[in-house]
Amino acid sequence: MVEPVKDMDARFGTRRYVVLTEPLRLDSGASLSPVEIAYETYGALNADGSNAILICHALTGDQYVASTHPVTGKPGWWTRAVGPGLPIDPTRHFIICANVLGSCMGSSGPASIDPATRGEGGGEPFAMRFPVITIADMVRAQAMLLDHLGIGRLFAVIGGSMGGMQALSWPTIFPDRVESAIVIASTSRHSAQNIAFHEVGRQAIMADPRWRGGAYYADGQAPASGLAVARMAAHITYLSEEGLTEKFGRRLQARDAKTFGFDADFQVESYLRHQGISFVERFDANSYLYITRAMDYYDIAEDHGGSLAAAFTATRARFCLISFDTDWLYPTAESRLIVHALNAAGREVSFVELHSPFGHDAFLLDAPDMNRVIDGFLRAKRS
Amino acid sequence: MVEPVKDMDARFGTRRYVVLTEPLRLDSGASLSPVEIAYETYGALNADGSNAILICHALTGDQYVASTHPVTGKPGWWTRAVGPGLPIDPTRHFIICANVLGSCMGSSGPASIDPATRGEGGGEPFAMRFPVITIADMVRAQAMLLDHLGIGRLFAVIGGSMGGMQALSWPTIFPDRVESAIVIASTSRHSAQNIAFHEVGRQAIMADPRWRGGAYYADGQAPASGLAVARMAAHITYLSEEGLTEKFGRRLQARDAKTFGFDADFQVESYLRHQGISFVERFDANSYLYITRAMDYYDIAEDHGGSLAAAFTATRARFCLISFDTDWLYPTAESRLIVHALNAAGREVSFVELHSPFGHDAFLLDAPDMNRVIDGFLRAKRS
Repeated sequence: MVEPVKDMDARFGTRRYVVLTEPLRLDSGASLSPVEIAYETYGALNADGSNAILICHALTGDQYVASTHPVTGKPGWWTRAVGPGLPIDPTRHFIICANVLGSCMGSSGPASIDPATRGEGGGEPFAMRFPVITIADMVRAQAMLLDHLGIGRLFAVIGGSMGGMQALSWPTIFPDRVESAIVIASTSRHSAQNIAFHEVGRQAIMADPRWRGGAYYADGQAPASGLAVARMAAHITYLSEEGLTEKFGRRLQARDAKTFGFDADFQVESYLRHQGISFVERFDANSYLYITRAMDYYDIAEDHGGSLAAAFTATRARFCLISFDTDWLYPTAESRLIVHALNAAGREVSFVELHSPFGHDAFLLDAPDMNRVIDGFLRAKRS
Repeated sequence: MVEPVKDMDARFGTRRYVVLTEPLRLDSGASLSPVEIAYETYGALNADGSNAILICHALTGDQYVASTHPVTGKPGWWTRAVGPGLPIDPTRHFIICANVLGSCMGSSGPASIDPATRGEGGGEPFAMRFPVITIADMVRAQAMLLDHLGIGRLFAVIGGSMGGMQALSWPTIFPDRVESAIVIASTSRHSAQNIAFHEVGRQAIMADPRWRGGAYYADGQAPASGLAVARMAAHITYLSEEGLTEKFGRRLQARDAKTFGFDADFQVESYLRHQGISFVERFDANSYLYITRAMDYYDIAEDHGGSLAAAFTATRARFCLISFDTDWLYPTAESRLIVHALNAAGREVSFVELHSPFGHDAFLLDAPDMNRVIDGFLRAKRS
């Protein structure tokens, strides 16, 4: 079923990588084979295999949770929570983080070679022939990786934002494989406003003439302008109004007075432009389309007659929900919905709303309260 | 100084139109001459000239406040508040609404002919040679129109959103020319988040290869894709999360199941795409750049050492502030700031926060409470 782990230098340089040949049956009805998964691990699996923690990343995240990013050279995206002496600790836990299906850091996605085109020349990228995937598909691909790694059961699955969607889905799809799930700054379904913001991003990408129906890989002319605009729009939703005012207010960028022109007079404009420009260097526009689509399709209650409680009936995990008071992308009310449904289903759940001025992105920043909650929850015995 | 009112069929068809030859000195230091203003009036000025109400329109609004729009064929944008028996009543008031400077419905803007290029061939549009303008410049142009119409003093100035910015600015710039000002769903300065959303829109327009530095008028190939994306992003900010959920939720668009593709599966996607597409038929992309810039530059306190109260010290008008509880673009807190500053300056001010599920756009929709407040305020004697 599986091929051995091998190192490879994929497009962005991945470290651990496996090609799983067993087909992955997708929610769409399509089937994907092979399934490539790029991942990082930290620490070692203990003798009884009871210390595995799967970290699930967000929309534009990747497997480099605590490793230097090969493209940007920046530290891993969650080094504030993952590391020796931190709540998720490689000296105690076996930590796995895999690039999600549909992404562009080594796992199967639209930039991967479509096996149907493999010939003498080596084959062509899927582009928009890649099947539309769901959050549940991402989870099933992760389960295939765990099979490959010989991990039957997770001590914990944890993630923020889209990572939280995966963490929440895990116990509903694999009730026997998860002991505990930590869901941070997330939701049980994408709201109309969430979908609307994603649709703006997709339209920005598709409006870029370089997108050309997604078939831009051959000549290296990616739809960078469209992707940058998509990122800028999304980035605003990751920050709070309060945080933006505190950080930038109406301060001017390296000038004493307004220029009465269209340069980035304001610091916030300059910051946002930088966010857009630097993002396109590390992310694939088609992956952005596929992953936002997976998030928009996400609605855990949908397959259970619209009842979220029904979705949790079969679960056996302990749950921990964490929200941030200034997060307007997935506000606390969304976490409360989940908590109420878990209560209704008789599941064990902890919930805390934390204060932060930083909005949705708070979970990626210095958040000592969050670390304490995660640590306490992971160390607690089942009640 | 003024030329007679004449009818003309401008690009989008305007009804009333005047060319004011006296130069308008702009905040940037530049000077604009001639100043073209397209406007609508309703009712008649009374003998003592005491019944004039100036209505100021929002970013993408126009002078057709209670007249059929010549491009879309739709009723005027504020027929719920302006009309016989309504708070702003042509049988009692002389109502004026002028297309703002920088816009594209007949008043001077980037699509207007740059007089410096006027020659045998008729001249070329300003495009990005049009000077960057401010909210105060819009107000000064309106004052020139009032001079032309022989109106010394306004009984009231009223507007929502960017119209509210003008209404709030009027008494600070022309203390002797305004008896009362009604400021709806507005603010005294653009916040970092407000600027950020506008910057996304501008970048979307400028990223469209058809924008070509703004010089797209000659061949009729306007940056429609970029403008549509800008409109989509902005449109989300005009609606509340609650309103979007109520109106669309996660309902699918004319289909029974998700298509696992990138069509508009969800109603909210279809709605948003429609908003983008229909907008480009009636609005000029360069005007969108200039007017959003004017809004971003807007900060009434700035010219008064950062003190909003100081900005109001010289005013003599009665003020009425109205906000909506689900408006997250210019939330109630922004109106409160203004009210507190007016109080500190010893001015007369009424303030009410109204409930509506519809977010920022509430003032454009059926809002009987708002109508009652406006009517009561306009009928009240000065205390």
